[in-house]
Amino acid sequence: MTNKTLAGAGLRGQSAGTTSLCTVGKSGTGLTYRGYDITDLANHAQFEEVAHLLLVGHLPTQAELDAYKTRLIDLRGLPDALKQALELIPADAHPMNVMRTGCSVLGNLEQETDFSQQQAATERMLALFPAIICYWYRFSHDGVRVDTFDKTENSIGGYFLKLLTGKTPSDLHKKVMHCSLILYAEHEFNASTFTARVCASTLSDIYSCITAAIGSLRGPLHGGANEAAMEMIQDWKTPDEAEAKILQMLKNKDKIMGFGHAIYRESDPRNALIKQWSKKLSEAVGDTQLYAVSERVEAVMKREKDLFCNADFFHASAYHFMDIPTKLFTPIFVMSRLTGWAAHVFEQRANNRIIRPSADYEGPEHQAWLPIEQRS
Amino acid sequence: MTNKTLAGAGLRGQSAGTTSLCTVGKSGTGLTYRGYDITDLANHAQFEEVAHLLLVGHLPTQAELDAYKTRLIDLRGLPDALKQALELIPADAHPMNVMRTGCSVLGNLEQETDFSQQQAATERMLALFPAIICYWYRFSHDGVRVDTFDKTENSIGGYFLKLLTGKTPSDLHKKVMHCSLILYAEHEFNASTFTARVCASTLSDIYSCITAAIGSLRGPLHGGANEAAMEMIQDWKTPDEAEAKILQMLKNKDKIMGFGHAIYRESDPRNALIKQWSKKLSEAVGDTQLYAVSERVEAVMKREKDLFCNADFFHASAYHFMDIPTKLFTPIFVMSRLTGWAAHVFEQRANNRIIRPSADYEGPEHQAWLPIEQRS
Repeated sequence: MTNKTLAGAGLRGQSAGTTSLCTVGKSGTGLTYRGYDITDLANHAQFEEVAHLLLVGHLPTQAELDAYKTRLIDLRGLPDALKQALELIPADAHPMNVMRTGCSVLGNLEQETDFSQQQAATERMLALFPAIICYWYRFSHDGVRVDTFDKTENSIGGYFLKLLTGKTPSDLHKKVMHCSLILYAEHEFNASTFTARVCASTLSDIYSCITAAIGSLRGPLHGGANEAAMEMIQDWKTPDEAEAKILQMLKNKDKIMGFGHAIYRESDPRNALIKQWSKKLSEAVGDTQLYAVSERVEAVMKREKDLFCNADFFHASAYHFMDIPTKLFTPIFVMSRLTGWAAHVFEQRANNRIIRPSADYEGPEHQAWLPIEQRS
Repeated sequence: MTNKTLAGAGLRGQSAGTTSLCTVGKSGTGLTYRGYDITDLANHAQFEEVAHLLLVGHLPTQAELDAYKTRLIDLRGLPDALKQALELIPADAHPMNVMRTGCSVLGNLEQETDFSQQQAATERMLALFPAIICYWYRFSHDGVRVDTFDKTENSIGGYFLKLLTGKTPSDLHKKVMHCSLILYAEHEFNASTFTARVCASTLSDIYSCITAAIGSLRGPLHGGANEAAMEMIQDWKTPDEAEAKILQMLKNKDKIMGFGHAIYRESDPRNALIKQWSKKLSEAVGDTQLYAVSERVEAVMKREKDLFCNADFFHASAYHFMDIPTKLFTPIFVMSRLTGWAAHVFEQRANNRIIRPSADYEGPEHQAWLPIEQRS
């Protein structure tokens, strides 16, 4: 068999399979989930409606949504062994390592032994992922064992904020979480989703697939961009200072996180959607600095490099205004993208062939064996 | 950007990058590591020589090998928190879940915070993986906490057998382990290695990459084949019974594990190498059943379907003759393939572009938003 050489590295622009879940950079404003425009979903839906769309296959009726949310609430509460495992992880661990490990441990305690369990296993993960990160965070940082059975909030985003802060989240914060979780839910064959599909293609269990995907999302070229954006802008006091710093970074050819995209060419449709919430949050907290800095950075990048904000850039300020610690930004991405990952695993399983590409060899020609005493 | 449609699914025959590590189905007997023929390596080398070849880049001199093995011995001994985490995993967990979780936990306790640590992190995993599986197995099955600092054996294979059985392994068993670990060490862009490279391409840490790869190797279409082969042949008492059962399975179109290969067309060069050890082990234990059954199955599959044994088929009987429980077969594969996975991670990092393919969309066309009260 002769290998077909790719036009570019990283399989860019190469089809690696089929999907019914998502289009990126095509119809509408550029991102659709099962044919629905991201702008409609983000402006009108709850995250649980979108999870139902991706995982069950259609937008739920009110009765279906109520039942789905009730199920996800009833599935809350970490198993004791998982809590004990999380308590063993030190406070300085990368929070994405904690998510990866929490998911992997769960896969031992509640194994998926048959693919008929895939929907139930996914619902369990949807219900528990906020608790995994918050239980570890509050225990390792504050010495507090939070009650993960808490049912006072009926949404995944609200549950996360409640466990993290111990306080009842505002309606504004819950709306932002719905929007944010919807924006991050699905994005075709991005690197973490493709990781999940490669893993699924060996017919491995779903916890292996999701654990693997978390490991890929952890990378700074993928899910870490909103954290990196926050670290960049957090110390800039005024728009003028931000402009000077950005110009210097551009001069130094530093990588500026939160801009541009591998697929989108003119804009990322998710930016306007989260930006409007960042603005409202800024007003609500009386911010006079971070939002203005963010807007200036956006303007300078457009003017100087014709680069646009991607989904991550205004997520940084939005999360910050809700008092979410920067290092927990990417774990929120996990709570959301879990829906897309799992939907892709279902899809891969339904029409599977093992994903096993070839490589172009560029190593040494045939080497004669040399006994160890003759080597130098 | 227009997607280039692939000839076949699963990226078969498509190049997804370059490598200097391995050729499959090309020169020599069909498998080379950095240009060295697998037959030379398996017949003459220790596994640690091959690990050095893959990870450092050349076959070691005697002094280099001695130093490498000493380092791997000195790195033995599970951290207490890892032992505690393994004790939380129940006896009925899939052993590959345990490997995946053990690797992930280790990545929290000893984080790779900079790629300059990649060689040291890999050596630590090489030193600890036998202990991860044996500590969990002996604790969960026998209630025994094995001493993972044990230094009585100077090879990875010997250390594994010692921890598993509590007894000093024979020279024959240690030689078989060298051969087996060498045969499984590397195999180009197989699904688990490709998983590791996709994860590495986001610039994630090496523990995420290896954890992800373990999850892929877990799948029955990939690493589980030697276990499935063992389960198939273990109850067949005579070659004639085996022949009758295989013919019936072929008639039923059942999948018969341990035969054929995605890349090799005429034979798997690894089969003859492990088969010779299976035969010697059979003679050593006075077996009159399993080896003869295996040979008959091989002959029938050749005669009926022109299919050849792959690396997995005679591994089943070889491991069984060494009293290794069937469910620990794939974890041994992990101890070995770790070398290939890590070498591919190093290679991906050295010349990286994020692996982000596209997909052919076959889902619904644009859907108009419908408020929840109007859905039915």
